[in-house]
Amino acid sequence: MAPRWKGKDAEAEALKEPMSNIISQLQSSLVQSDATGFLSGNNIRIAVGAEQTDLLDKACFGRPVSTVENDKQWFQLGLEEAFYLCYSLKCLKINSGGASPLDDEELWRYMKSKKKSFPCFYKAYSHLRSKNWVVRPGAQYGVDYVVYRHHPALVHSEYGVLVLSGEDDKDCNGRLREWSDFHCTTRLLGSVAKTLLVLYIMKNDDSDDCPLCLEKYTVEQRIITRWCPQQCREG
Amino acid sequence: MAPRWKGKDAEAEALKEPMSNIISQLQSSLVQSDATGFLSGNNIRIAVGAEQTDLLDKACFGRPVSTVENDKQWFQLGLEEAFYLCYSLKCLKINSGGASPLDDEELWRYMKSKKKSFPCFYKAYSHLRSKNWVVRPGAQYGVDYVVYRHHPALVHSEYGVLVLSGEDDKDCNGRLREWSDFHCTTRLLGSVAKTLLVLYIMKNDDSDDCPLCLEKYTVEQRIITRWCPQQCREG
Repeated sequence: MAPRWKGKDAEAEALKEPMSNIISQLQSSLVQSDATGFLSGNNIRIAVGAEQTDLLDKACFGRPVSTVENDKQWFQLGLEEAFYLCYSLKCLKINSGGASPLDDEELWRYMKSKKKSFPCFYKAYSHLRSKNWVVRPGAQYGVDYVVYRHHPALVHSEYGVLVLSGEDDKDCNGRLREWSDFHCTTRLLGSVAKTLLVLYIMKNDDSDDCPLCLEKYTVEQRIITRWCPQQCREG
Repeated sequence: MAPRWKGKDAEAEALKEPMSNIISQLQSSLVQSDATGFLSGNNIRIAVGAEQTDLLDKACFGRPVSTVENDKQWFQLGLEEAFYLCYSLKCLKINSGGASPLDDEELWRYMKSKKKSFPCFYKAYSHLRSKNWVVRPGAQYGVDYVVYRHHPALVHSEYGVLVLSGEDDKDCNGRLREWSDFHCTTRLLGSVAKTLLVLYIMKNDDSDDCPLCLEKYTVEQRIITRWCPQQCREG
Protein backbone atom coordinates (compact mmCIF):
# COMPACT_ATOMS: atom_id res chain seq x y z
CA MET A 1 0.00 0.00 0.00
CA ALA A 2 1.46 3.40 -0.96
CA PRO A 3 1.90 6.03 1.76
CA ARG A 4 -1.13 8.29 2.08
CA TRP A 5 0.15 11.86 2.26
CA LYS A 6 -2.07 14.54 3.74
CA GLY A 7 -2.43 17.13 0.99
CA LYS A 8 -0.45 17.71 -2.20
CA ASP A 9 2.65 19.39 -0.73
CA ALA A 10 3.07 16.98 2.17
CA GLU A 11 5.43 14.58 0.45
CA ALA A 12 7.73 17.38 -0.77
CA GLU A 13 7.73 18.91 2.69
CA ALA A 14 8.71 15.56 4.24
CA LEU A 15 11.50 15.03 1.70
CA LYS A 16 12.87 18.50 2.41
CA GLU A 17 13.37 17.66 6.05
CA PRO A 18 13.95 13.94 6.61
CA MET A 19 13.08 12.50 10.02
CA SER A 20 16.74 11.55 10.59
CA ASN A 21 17.70 15.27 10.41
CA ILE A 22 15.01 16.27 12.86
CA ILE A 23 16.09 13.57 15.30
CA SER A 24 19.73 14.70 15.03
CA GLN A 25 18.74 18.30 15.76
CA LEU A 26 16.71 17.18 18.76
CA GLN A 27 19.62 15.07 19.98
CA SER A 28 22.17 17.92 19.75
CA SER A 29 19.83 20.39 21.36
CA LEU A 30 19.08 18.12 24.33
CA VAL A 31 22.77 17.27 24.78
CA GLN A 32 23.76 20.96 24.76
CA SER A 33 21.18 21.87 27.36
CA ASP A 34 22.06 18.83 29.52
CA ALA A 35 18.35 17.95 29.56
CA THR A 36 17.03 16.06 32.57
CA GLY A 37 13.65 14.38 32.94
CA PHE A 38 11.84 13.26 36.08
CA LEU A 39 10.12 9.97 36.82
CA SER A 40 6.39 10.29 37.27
CA GLY A 41 4.80 6.83 37.56
CA ASN A 42 4.45 5.34 34.09
CA ASN A 43 5.71 8.53 32.46
CA ILE A 44 8.75 10.75 32.40
CA ARG A 45 8.34 14.52 32.47
CA ILE A 46 10.73 17.05 31.07
CA ALA A 47 10.59 20.87 31.07
CA VAL A 48 11.76 22.41 27.80
CA GLY A 49 12.00 25.81 26.12
CA ALA A 50 10.40 26.90 22.86
CA GLU A 51 13.04 25.42 20.53
CA GLN A 52 13.01 21.98 22.12
CA THR A 53 9.21 22.02 22.35
CA ASP A 54 9.21 22.46 18.60
CA LEU A 55 11.79 19.71 18.03
CA LEU A 56 10.07 17.20 20.33
CA ASP A 57 6.85 17.88 18.48
CA LYS A 58 8.45 17.55 15.04
CA ALA A 59 10.17 14.31 16.06
CA CYS A 60 6.97 13.05 17.71
CA PHE A 61 8.32 12.29 21.14
CA GLY A 62 5.81 12.53 23.95
CA ARG A 63 3.06 15.09 24.24
CA PRO A 64 2.85 18.52 25.81
CA VAL A 65 0.99 18.67 29.09
CA SER A 66 -0.92 21.79 29.93
CA THR A 67 1.23 23.14 32.75
CA VAL A 68 3.57 25.88 31.53
CA GLU A 69 6.06 27.61 33.88
CA ASN A 70 8.43 30.53 33.19
CA ASP A 71 8.49 30.07 29.40
CA LYS A 72 8.98 26.34 29.91
CA GLN A 73 6.66 23.72 28.48
CA TRP A 74 6.27 20.36 30.25
CA PHE A 75 6.46 17.32 27.99
CA GLN A 76 5.32 13.88 29.07
CA LEU A 77 7.22 10.95 27.57
CA GLY A 78 6.21 7.28 27.57
CA LEU A 79 8.58 4.62 28.93
CA GLU A 80 9.95 3.55 25.53
CA GLU A 81 10.31 7.14 24.31
CA ALA A 82 12.25 8.23 27.39
CA PHE A 83 14.49 5.18 27.34
CA TYR A 84 15.21 5.72 23.64
CA LEU A 85 16.35 9.31 24.29
CA CYS A 86 18.45 8.19 27.29
CA TYR A 87 19.92 4.90 26.21
CA SER A 88 19.98 4.93 22.40
CA LEU A 89 20.42 8.65 21.65
CA LYS A 90 22.29 9.50 24.90
CA CYS A 91 20.70 12.93 24.98
CA LEU A 92 18.52 12.77 28.10
CA LYS A 93 19.24 12.10 31.76
CA ILE A 94 16.54 10.96 34.14
CA ASN A 95 16.39 11.79 37.79
CA SER A 96 14.27 10.07 40.42
CA GLY A 97 14.75 12.78 43.06
CA GLY A 98 18.23 11.69 44.21
CA ALA A 99 21.47 13.65 43.92
CA SER A 100 22.51 12.23 40.56
CA PRO A 101 20.61 10.89 37.53
CA LEU A 102 19.84 7.16 37.26
CA ASP A 103 22.38 5.09 35.35
CA ASP A 104 21.30 2.79 32.49
CA GLU A 105 20.87 -0.28 34.73
CA GLU A 106 18.80 1.59 37.33
CA LEU A 107 16.59 3.07 34.65
CA TRP A 108 16.18 -0.33 32.97
CA ARG A 109 15.05 -1.86 36.26
CA TYR A 110 12.58 0.99 36.81
CA MET A 111 11.09 0.50 33.34
CA LYS A 112 10.70 -3.26 33.90
CA SER A 113 9.08 -2.66 37.28
CA LYS A 114 6.44 -0.49 35.59
CA LYS A 115 5.88 -2.75 32.57
CA LYS A 116 6.84 -6.41 32.66
CA SER A 117 7.04 -6.66 28.88
CA PHE A 118 9.23 -3.54 28.61
CA PRO A 119 12.32 -5.38 27.21
CA CYS A 120 10.38 -6.72 24.19
CA PHE A 121 8.42 -3.54 23.63
CA TYR A 122 11.56 -1.45 23.85
CA LYS A 123 13.33 -3.69 21.35
CA ALA A 124 10.43 -3.25 18.93
CA TYR A 125 10.21 0.50 19.53
CA SER A 126 13.95 1.12 19.10
CA HIS A 127 14.08 -1.19 16.07
CA LEU A 128 11.51 0.96 14.27
CA ARG A 129 12.81 4.31 15.52
CA SER A 130 16.37 3.46 14.46
CA LYS A 131 15.02 3.08 10.93
CA ASN A 132 13.50 6.57 11.20
CA TRP A 133 9.90 5.48 11.50
CA VAL A 134 7.74 7.62 13.76
CA VAL A 135 6.24 5.30 16.39
CA ARG A 136 3.10 6.21 18.32
CA PRO A 137 0.72 4.30 20.63
CA GLY A 138 -1.82 2.17 18.72
CA ALA A 139 -4.53 1.55 21.33
CA GLN A 140 -7.11 3.29 19.17
CA TYR A 141 -6.75 0.52 16.58
CA GLY A 142 -6.24 -2.33 19.04
CA VAL A 143 -2.53 -2.67 18.30
CA ASP A 144 0.61 -1.85 20.26
CA TYR A 145 1.95 0.86 17.97
CA VAL A 146 1.16 2.66 14.75
CA VAL A 147 4.06 3.80 12.59
CA TYR A 148 4.35 6.77 10.27
CA ARG A 149 6.80 7.49 7.48
CA HIS A 150 7.06 11.08 8.71
CA HIS A 151 5.16 13.42 11.02
CA PRO A 152 1.45 12.50 11.47
CA ALA A 153 0.52 15.98 10.28
CA LEU A 154 1.95 15.09 6.85
CA VAL A 155 1.09 11.42 6.37
CA HIS A 156 -1.30 8.75 7.63
CA SER A 157 0.20 5.86 9.56
CA GLU A 158 1.01 2.89 7.33
CA TYR A 159 1.34 0.01 9.77
CA GLY A 160 -0.38 -1.21 12.88
CA VAL A 161 2.22 -3.11 14.91
CA LEU A 162 1.75 -6.00 17.31
CA VAL A 163 4.77 -7.02 19.37
CA LEU A 164 5.01 -10.73 20.21
CA SER A 165 7.84 -12.34 22.10
CA GLY A 166 8.99 -15.19 19.91
CA GLU A 167 6.95 -18.18 18.86
CA ASP A 168 5.51 -19.01 22.27
CA ASP A 169 4.98 -15.37 23.24
CA LYS A 170 5.39 -16.08 26.93
CA ASP A 171 6.44 -12.54 27.88
CA CYS A 172 4.27 -10.49 25.64
CA ASN A 173 0.72 -9.77 24.86
CA GLY A 174 -0.82 -13.08 23.88
CA ARG A 175 -2.40 -11.73 20.72
CA LEU A 176 -2.93 -13.55 17.41
CA ARG A 177 -3.37 -16.98 18.97
CA GLU A 178 -6.70 -17.44 17.26
CA TRP A 179 -7.96 -17.02 13.72
CA SER A 180 -10.78 -14.81 14.90
CA ASP A 181 -8.19 -12.41 16.33
CA PHE A 182 -6.32 -12.37 13.00
CA HIS A 183 -9.59 -11.69 11.18
CA CYS A 184 -10.52 -8.93 13.58
CA THR A 185 -7.14 -7.20 13.41
CA THR A 186 -6.63 -7.39 9.65
CA ARG A 187 -10.20 -6.30 8.94
CA LEU A 188 -9.99 -3.32 11.30
CA LEU A 189 -6.59 -2.20 10.00
CA GLY A 190 -7.72 -2.76 6.40
CA SER A 191 -10.71 -0.52 6.97
CA VAL A 192 -8.39 2.32 8.00
CA ALA A 193 -5.90 1.62 5.18
CA LYS A 194 -3.15 0.22 7.39
CA THR A 195 -1.22 -3.03 7.19
CA LEU A 196 -0.61 -5.39 10.09
CA LEU A 197 3.09 -5.64 10.94
CA VAL A 198 3.98 -8.28 13.52
CA LEU A 199 7.33 -7.99 15.24
CA TYR A 200 8.43 -11.22 16.89
CA ILE A 201 11.15 -10.45 19.42
CA MET A 202 13.41 -13.49 19.85
CA LYS A 203 15.22 -13.26 23.18
CA ASN A 204 17.81 -16.01 22.53
CA ASP A 205 18.59 -15.91 26.24
CA ASP A 206 16.42 -15.73 29.34
CA SER A 207 18.32 -13.02 31.16
CA ASP A 208 17.08 -9.45 30.90
CA ASP A 209 18.81 -7.99 33.94
CA CYS A 210 20.49 -5.15 32.13
CA PRO A 211 19.96 -3.27 28.88
CA LEU A 212 22.92 -5.02 27.26
CA CYS A 213 20.62 -8.01 26.75
CA LEU A 214 18.98 -6.01 23.95
CA GLU A 215 22.04 -6.75 21.81
CA LYS A 216 21.17 -10.44 21.90
CA TYR A 217 17.55 -9.93 20.90
CA THR A 218 16.64 -10.43 17.26
CA VAL A 219 13.56 -9.12 15.49
CA GLU A 220 11.52 -11.11 12.99
CA GLN A 221 9.21 -8.97 10.93
CA ARG A 222 6.07 -10.24 9.24
CA ILE A 223 3.44 -8.43 7.25
CA ILE A 224 0.02 -10.05 7.48
CA THR A 225 -2.66 -9.27 4.92
CA ARG A 226 -5.70 -10.99 3.46
CA TRP A 227 -5.11 -13.06 0.39
CA CYS A 228 -7.75 -12.46 -2.26
CA PRO A 229 -7.76 -15.30 -4.80
CA GLN A 230 -9.50 -13.09 -7.38
CA GLN A 231 -6.71 -10.52 -7.26
CA CYS A 232 -3.89 -13.05 -7.30
CA ARG A 233 -4.89 -15.42 -10.09
CA GLU A 234 -3.54 -15.29 -13.57
CA GLY A 235 -5.31 -13.07 -16.08
CA MET B 1 -28.38 0.61 19.34
CA ALA B 2 -31.70 0.29 17.46
CA PRO B 3 -32.05 -2.47 14.85
CA ARG B 4 -31.07 -1.29 11.38
CA TRP B 5 -33.79 -2.49 9.01
CA LYS B 6 -33.02 -2.75 5.32
CA GLY B 7 -35.60 -0.53 3.61
CA LYS B 8 -38.82 0.95 4.89
CA ASP B 9 -41.08 -2.12 4.70
CA ALA B 10 -38.60 -4.52 6.22
CA GLU B 11 -39.73 -4.14 9.81
CA ALA B 12 -43.40 -4.68 8.92
CA GLU B 13 -42.48 -7.70 6.85
CA ALA B 14 -40.53 -9.18 9.76
CA LEU B 15 -43.39 -8.56 12.19
CA LYS B 16 -45.86 -10.24 9.83
CA GLU B 17 -43.86 -13.46 9.93
CA PRO B 18 -41.95 -13.88 13.20
CA MET B 19 -38.86 -16.10 13.13
CA SER B 20 -40.49 -18.47 15.64
CA ASN B 21 -43.26 -19.22 13.06
CA ILE B 22 -40.75 -19.86 10.30
CA ILE B 23 -38.77 -22.24 12.52
CA SER B 24 -41.96 -24.12 13.47
CA GLN B 25 -42.89 -24.55 9.80
CA LEU B 26 -39.41 -25.81 9.01
CA GLN B 27 -39.58 -28.19 11.95
CA SER B 28 -42.96 -29.70 10.90
CA SER B 29 -41.92 -30.01 7.31
CA LEU B 30 -38.67 -31.82 8.12
CA VAL B 31 -40.43 -34.14 10.59
CA GLN B 32 -43.13 -35.03 8.01
CA SER B 33 -40.56 -35.86 5.35
CA ASP B 34 -38.42 -37.84 7.83
CA ALA B 35 -35.45 -35.74 6.68
CA THR B 36 -32.00 -37.32 6.88
CA GLY B 37 -28.63 -35.61 6.51
CA PHE B 38 -25.21 -37.12 5.82
CA LEU B 39 -21.91 -36.46 7.52
CA SER B 40 -19.36 -34.82 5.26
CA GLY B 41 -16.27 -33.83 7.26
CA ASN B 42 -16.99 -30.64 9.15
CA ASN B 43 -20.38 -30.28 7.51
CA ILE B 44 -23.66 -32.11 7.22
CA ARG B 45 -25.41 -32.33 3.85
CA ILE B 46 -29.09 -32.72 3.26
CA ALA B 47 -31.07 -33.00 0.01
CA VAL B 48 -34.35 -31.09 0.09
CA GLY B 49 -37.23 -30.18 -2.23
CA ALA B 50 -38.40 -26.70 -3.21
CA GLU B 51 -40.54 -26.09 -0.09
CA GLN B 52 -37.84 -27.05 2.37
CA THR B 53 -35.20 -25.15 0.38
CA ASP B 54 -37.35 -22.09 0.88
CA LEU B 55 -37.88 -22.75 4.60
CA LEU B 56 -34.18 -23.45 5.30
CA ASP B 57 -33.34 -20.23 3.54
CA LYS B 58 -35.97 -18.21 5.43
CA ALA B 59 -34.85 -19.69 8.74
CA CYS B 60 -31.18 -19.17 7.81
CA PHE B 61 -29.93 -22.69 8.32
CA GLY B 62 -26.94 -23.68 6.20
CA ARG B 63 -26.36 -22.64 2.63
CA PRO B 64 -27.29 -24.17 -0.71
CA VAL B 65 -24.46 -25.90 -2.54
CA SER B 66 -24.44 -25.86 -6.29
CA THR B 67 -25.16 -29.52 -6.97
CA VAL B 68 -28.83 -30.08 -7.77
CA GLU B 69 -30.24 -33.55 -8.50
CA ASN B 70 -33.77 -34.58 -9.60
CA ASP B 71 -35.50 -31.44 -8.33
CA LYS B 72 -33.56 -31.75 -5.09
CA GLN B 73 -31.29 -29.03 -3.73
CA TRP B 74 -28.34 -29.94 -1.55
CA PHE B 75 -27.94 -27.86 1.60
CA GLN B 76 -24.77 -27.78 3.65
CA LEU B 77 -25.20 -27.31 7.40
CA GLY B 78 -22.53 -26.38 9.94
CA LEU B 79 -21.98 -28.54 13.03
CA GLU B 80 -24.03 -26.38 15.39
CA GLU B 81 -26.85 -25.93 12.87
CA ALA B 82 -27.16 -29.64 12.21
CA PHE B 83 -27.04 -30.52 15.90
CA TYR B 84 -29.68 -27.91 16.67
CA LEU B 85 -32.07 -29.42 14.11
CA CYS B 86 -31.34 -32.95 15.40
CA TYR B 87 -31.11 -32.53 19.12
CA SER B 88 -33.06 -29.41 20.01
CA LEU B 89 -35.77 -29.39 17.32
CA LYS B 90 -35.86 -33.18 16.78
CA CYS B 91 -36.61 -32.74 13.10
CA LEU B 92 -33.48 -34.12 11.42
CA LYS B 93 -31.74 -37.48 11.48
CA ILE B 94 -28.10 -37.85 10.53
CA ASN B 95 -26.58 -40.89 8.89
CA SER B 96 -22.92 -41.73 8.68
CA GLY B 97 -23.36 -44.47 6.04
CA GLY B 98 -24.53 -47.21 8.42
CA ALA B 99 -27.91 -48.94 8.47
CA SER B 100 -29.54 -46.57 10.97
CA PRO B 101 -29.06 -42.91 11.83
CA LEU B 102 -26.68 -41.89 14.63
CA ASP B 103 -28.22 -41.50 18.06
CA ASP B 104 -27.69 -38.31 20.10
CA GLU B 105 -24.61 -39.62 21.92
CA GLU B 106 -22.93 -40.85 18.74
CA LEU B 107 -23.60 -37.54 17.00
CA TRP B 108 -22.33 -35.57 20.02
CA ARG B 109 -19.08 -37.55 19.97
CA TYR B 110 -18.70 -36.94 16.23
CA MET B 111 -19.18 -33.19 16.69
CA LYS B 112 -16.63 -33.08 19.50
CA SER B 113 -14.12 -35.04 17.41
CA LYS B 114 -14.40 -32.40 14.69
CA LYS B 115 -14.33 -29.38 16.98
CA LYS B 116 -12.93 -29.60 20.49
CA SER B 117 -14.84 -26.55 21.67
CA PHE B 118 -18.13 -27.83 20.24
CA PRO B 119 -19.90 -28.17 23.65
CA CYS B 120 -19.41 -24.49 24.49
CA PHE B 121 -20.11 -23.25 20.99
CA TYR B 122 -23.25 -25.36 20.78
CA LYS B 123 -24.49 -24.04 24.12
CA ALA B 124 -24.00 -20.49 22.85
CA TYR B 125 -25.60 -21.23 19.47
CA SER B 126 -28.65 -22.97 20.93
CA HIS B 127 -29.02 -20.31 23.63
CA LEU B 128 -29.36 -17.61 20.96
CA ARG B 129 -31.44 -19.70 18.53
CA SER B 130 -33.89 -20.69 21.28
CA LYS B 131 -34.58 -16.98 21.75
CA ASN B 132 -35.30 -16.71 18.01
CA TRP B 133 -32.16 -14.87 17.04
CA VAL B 134 -30.74 -15.78 13.66
CA VAL B 135 -27.15 -16.93 14.22
CA ARG B 136 -24.55 -16.90 11.43
CA PRO B 137 -20.75 -17.29 11.31
CA GLY B 138 -18.88 -14.13 12.25
CA ALA B 139 -15.39 -14.74 10.81
CA GLN B 140 -15.73 -11.71 8.57
CA TYR B 141 -15.76 -9.49 11.65
CA GLY B 142 -13.31 -11.51 13.71
CA VAL B 143 -15.98 -12.89 16.03
CA ASP B 144 -17.53 -16.34 16.47
CA TYR B 145 -21.07 -15.44 15.42
CA VAL B 146 -23.14 -12.51 14.26
CA VAL B 147 -26.79 -12.42 15.27
CA TYR B 148 -29.78 -10.93 13.48
CA ARG B 149 -33.22 -10.01 14.75
CA HIS B 150 -34.73 -11.55 11.60
CA HIS B 151 -33.55 -12.66 8.16
CA PRO B 152 -30.36 -10.91 6.96
CA ALA B 153 -32.23 -9.75 3.87
CA LEU B 154 -34.43 -7.59 6.14
CA VAL B 155 -32.11 -6.39 8.86
CA HIS B 156 -28.41 -5.85 9.61
CA SER B 157 -26.86 -7.99 12.32
CA GLU B 158 -26.93 -6.30 15.72
CA TYR B 159 -24.34 -8.21 17.71
CA GLY B 160 -20.95 -9.73 17.16
CA VAL B 161 -20.62 -12.66 19.56
CA LEU B 162 -17.53 -14.11 21.18
CA VAL B 163 -17.95 -17.39 23.06
CA LEU B 164 -15.67 -17.84 26.07
CA SER B 165 -15.75 -20.80 28.41
CA GLY B 166 -16.04 -19.34 31.88
CA GLU B 167 -13.60 -17.06 33.58
CA ASP B 168 -10.45 -19.00 32.75
CA ASP B 169 -11.60 -19.90 29.23
CA LYS B 170 -9.61 -23.12 29.16
CA ASP B 171 -11.77 -24.82 26.51
CA CYS B 172 -12.56 -21.97 24.23
CA ASN B 173 -10.96 -19.44 22.06
CA GLY B 174 -8.65 -17.46 24.28
CA ARG B 175 -9.91 -14.10 23.08
CA LEU B 176 -10.21 -10.89 25.09
CA ARG B 177 -7.28 -11.61 27.36
CA GLU B 178 -5.64 -8.31 26.45
CA TRP B 179 -6.81 -4.73 26.32
CA SER B 180 -5.55 -4.37 22.76
CA ASP B 181 -7.88 -7.22 21.74
CA PHE B 182 -10.82 -5.47 23.44
CA HIS B 183 -9.92 -2.24 21.65
CA CYS B 184 -9.60 -4.01 18.32
CA THR B 185 -12.89 -5.88 18.62
CA THR B 186 -15.02 -3.01 19.92
CA ARG B 187 -13.58 -0.58 17.39
CA LEU B 188 -14.16 -2.95 14.46
CA LEU B 189 -17.70 -3.84 15.54
CA GLY B 190 -18.47 -0.18 16.27
CA SER B 191 -17.40 0.78 12.77
CA VAL B 192 -20.00 -1.63 11.33
CA ALA B 193 -22.70 -0.59 13.82
CA LYS B 194 -22.66 -3.79 15.85
CA THR B 195 -22.27 -4.37 19.57
CA LEU B 196 -19.92 -6.87 21.18
CA LEU B 197 -21.84 -9.59 23.03
CA VAL B 198 -19.69 -11.96 25.08
CA LEU B 199 -21.23 -15.26 26.11
CA TYR B 200 -19.37 -16.90 28.98
CA ILE B 201 -20.32 -20.57 29.10
CA MET B 202 -19.97 -21.87 32.66
CA LYS B 203 -19.63 -25.66 32.60
CA ASN B 204 -20.18 -26.25 36.36
CA ASP B 205 -18.88 -29.79 35.81
CA ASP B 206 -15.96 -31.17 33.85
CA SER B 207 -17.77 -34.00 32.10
CA ASP B 208 -19.03 -33.45 28.56
CA ASP B 209 -19.43 -37.09 27.50
CA CYS B 210 -23.03 -36.80 26.39
CA PRO B 211 -25.32 -33.94 25.32
CA LEU B 212 -27.18 -34.07 28.64
CA CYS B 213 -24.27 -32.09 30.11
CA LEU B 214 -25.68 -29.07 28.26
CA GLU B 215 -28.40 -28.89 30.91
CA LYS B 216 -25.77 -28.12 33.53
CA TYR B 217 -24.14 -25.36 31.53
CA THR B 218 -25.10 -21.81 32.33
CA VAL B 219 -24.65 -18.77 30.11
CA GLU B 220 -23.47 -15.39 31.34
CA GLN B 221 -24.11 -12.61 28.87
CA ARG B 222 -22.17 -9.36 28.77
CA ILE B 223 -22.41 -6.44 26.41
CA ILE B 224 -19.12 -4.60 25.98
CA THR B 225 -19.04 -1.07 24.60
CA ARG B 226 -16.81 1.97 24.85
CA TRP B 227 -17.65 4.41 27.59
CA CYS B 228 -17.55 7.99 26.39
CA PRO B 229 -17.28 10.37 29.35
CA GLN B 230 -18.64 13.24 27.25
CA GLN B 231 -21.82 11.33 26.47
CA CYS B 232 -22.35 10.05 29.99
CA ARG B 233 -21.86 13.13 32.11
CA GLU B 234 -24.64 15.23 33.51
CA GLY B 235 -25.92 18.15 31.43
